[in-house]
Amino acid sequence: MEGRPMRVGLDVGGTKIDAVIVDPSGGIAARVRLATGWGAEGVIDTVIAAVHAVATDAGVNVASIRSVGIGIPGQVDPDTGRVLHAVNIGVDELDLGAAISAELGVAVRVENDVKAAGLGAHALHRAGGDRIDSMAYLNLGTGIAAGIVIGGRLWRGAHGAAGEVGHISVDPQGPECRCGQRGCIEALAGGRAIAQRWDRGGDLPVLDVFDAADDGDPFARELRADLARGVAAAVRVLVLTADVEVVVLGGGVTALGERLMADVAAELAASAQASPFMRSLGLEGRVEMLASGSPAAALGAALIGARDPQPEELLTHG
Amino acid sequence: MEGRPMRVGLDVGGTKIDAVIVDPSGGIAARVRLATGWGAEGVIDTVIAAVHAVATDAGVNVASIRSVGIGIPGQVDPDTGRVLHAVNIGVDELDLGAAISAELGVAVRVENDVKAAGLGAHALHRAGGDRIDSMAYLNLGTGIAAGIVIGGRLWRGAHGAAGEVGHISVDPQGPECRCGQRGCIEALAGGRAIAQRWDRGGDLPVLDVFDAADDGDPFARELRADLARGVAAAVRVLVLTADVEVVVLGGGVTALGERLMADVAAELAASAQASPFMRSLGLEGRVEMLASGSPAAALGAALIGARDPQPEELLTHG
Repeated sequence: MEGRPMRVGLDVGGTKIDAVIVDPSGGIAARVRLATGWGAEGVIDTVIAAVHAVATDAGVNVASIRSVGIGIPGQVDPDTGRVLHAVNIGVDELDLGAAISAELGVAVRVENDVKAAGLGAHALHRAGGDRIDSMAYLNLGTGIAAGIVIGGRLWRGAHGAAGEVGHISVDPQGPECRCGQRGCIEALAGGRAIAQRWDRGGDLPVLDVFDAADDGDPFARELRADLARGVAAAVRVLVLTADVEVVVLGGGVTALGERLMADVAAELAASAQASPFMRSLGLEGRVEMLASGSPAAALGAALIGARDPQPEELLTHG
Repeated sequence: MEGRPMRVGLDVGGTKIDAVIVDPSGGIAARVRLATGWGAEGVIDTVIAAVHAVATDAGVNVASIRSVGIGIPGQVDPDTGRVLHAVNIGVDELDLGAAISAELGVAVRVENDVKAAGLGAHALHRAGGDRIDSMAYLNLGTGIAAGIVIGGRLWRGAHGAAGEVGHISVDPQGPECRCGQRGCIEALAGGRAIAQRWDRGGDLPVLDVFDAADDGDPFARELRADLARGVAAAVRVLVLTADVEVVVLGGGVTALGERLMADVAAELAASAQASPFMRSLGLEGRVEMLASGSPAAALGAALIGARDPQPEELLTHG
């Protein structure tokens, strides 16, 4: 396999790193998952281990990897590869791009994980034969944010804040948000906010809330209704502002699968019922859920890594 | 002036047509305002009259006009030049592009007036030396909608609904919106909605509300607070979703000038005070108001008219 320009993409999550290696046709040649190390050193070590592991799995020499792209939580400067405030992996400040590039001798690009997943979800949609021009990937995890793809390209906005819909307030009487406002979409529908409001511990508090709601617990029913209300509000905001063709739901909370989708669909149906204008948007038909275990985030990271011409390509063509 | 490719742009409003003629350097060579005719025939007649009037003012033969662009309220199909539901000029359905093109023998493009104004506001900003990449023009008129410019181009979205932020609900207990929902931004801050809630007639009900609020009328103060709340919500939605560099306020309600800006700034300052995240966005410094009498909408229409190569250009270059 030497000589074929392979691209590695890594999604660095709070518990695991998902790594893929992509061949020149865009296909995933191998995929590996490893536990994420803690803190700057731990993250660097496990990222390098993941690159080696996925290359080995694909029968590729690490030296022949053309580019590495990394999606990671927190604030990312894509120009420098610097990461700030990735609190759930113990990183306050890290020149991740430079560190990995120095270690592997290959071009490295770093992007926020939700934005990378947006690009990957769009690529998977296209690979499925659906050539949509615009999409939002709405990540329902501990927090809520979206990655917006317009004209096939990631839209970061003027200051990288595009898609930060989690902190739009949709209810002045709603629960307090950790950001300081009230009734933010994230305060209604974020996994962390729901766990804190539920406050009964457990490994999967949002699942517990759904089960308790099914058993008739009134507070659980309120929390479950707020989750659907927050997700539906995010979908409306994304369509009424950016008019993306499709909103793809992903992230840990989507492990609820059809139970969540049914609630969100009911919420969107209610506003379509109340409003001919909302009905004309056909929102229910524009919401999809990423398949469980989808490699979207790692694939998107590989695409980001491959985005710019590499030095040797510049030499050849320029 | 014969031989220089002049472009005409028209903003067809509820009461007047604003027409400009733009020279090849992008400068406005002449500007004319005429009363808008009523219904399909009235609109066609006054559009043609406006083209003749602005050409005459610039000393240009109508036959030498290269393109005509028209911004008009209602739902517009920019591919066909067809207009639907422009209720405030008495038009339910009109092939405006075809009608004007047949009459003048020149290429005509039609776009929604708020979208055209967005493009024009962006061009004026650039002409002022500020080369921003993204902008939203937030029109505060009888209704509320935005025109979003990204990378110098109008972003219409998948189905032309980009920028329809007026129908995002930000308060489930808020006033009913004519769209059927509750607490929409337009129900809080749209000129029509404020006039209906105030319900005391008058030519300038929003101005009356501000004056009555200054005199201490409690209901007027509530309406005035809702206006600022709605506009601030629209600004937050535009920045947190599209992360546009600047939000430019325009439309009839901005005749209130500094009185409105002060209220909106206070509302944005309050959320920045409550939330470090909101503070980091610097929203107060990103909101501007279009100068009174600005030709943005007509200029934007001229740019839209000039967008595609005209037949003779295709012949020359293709």
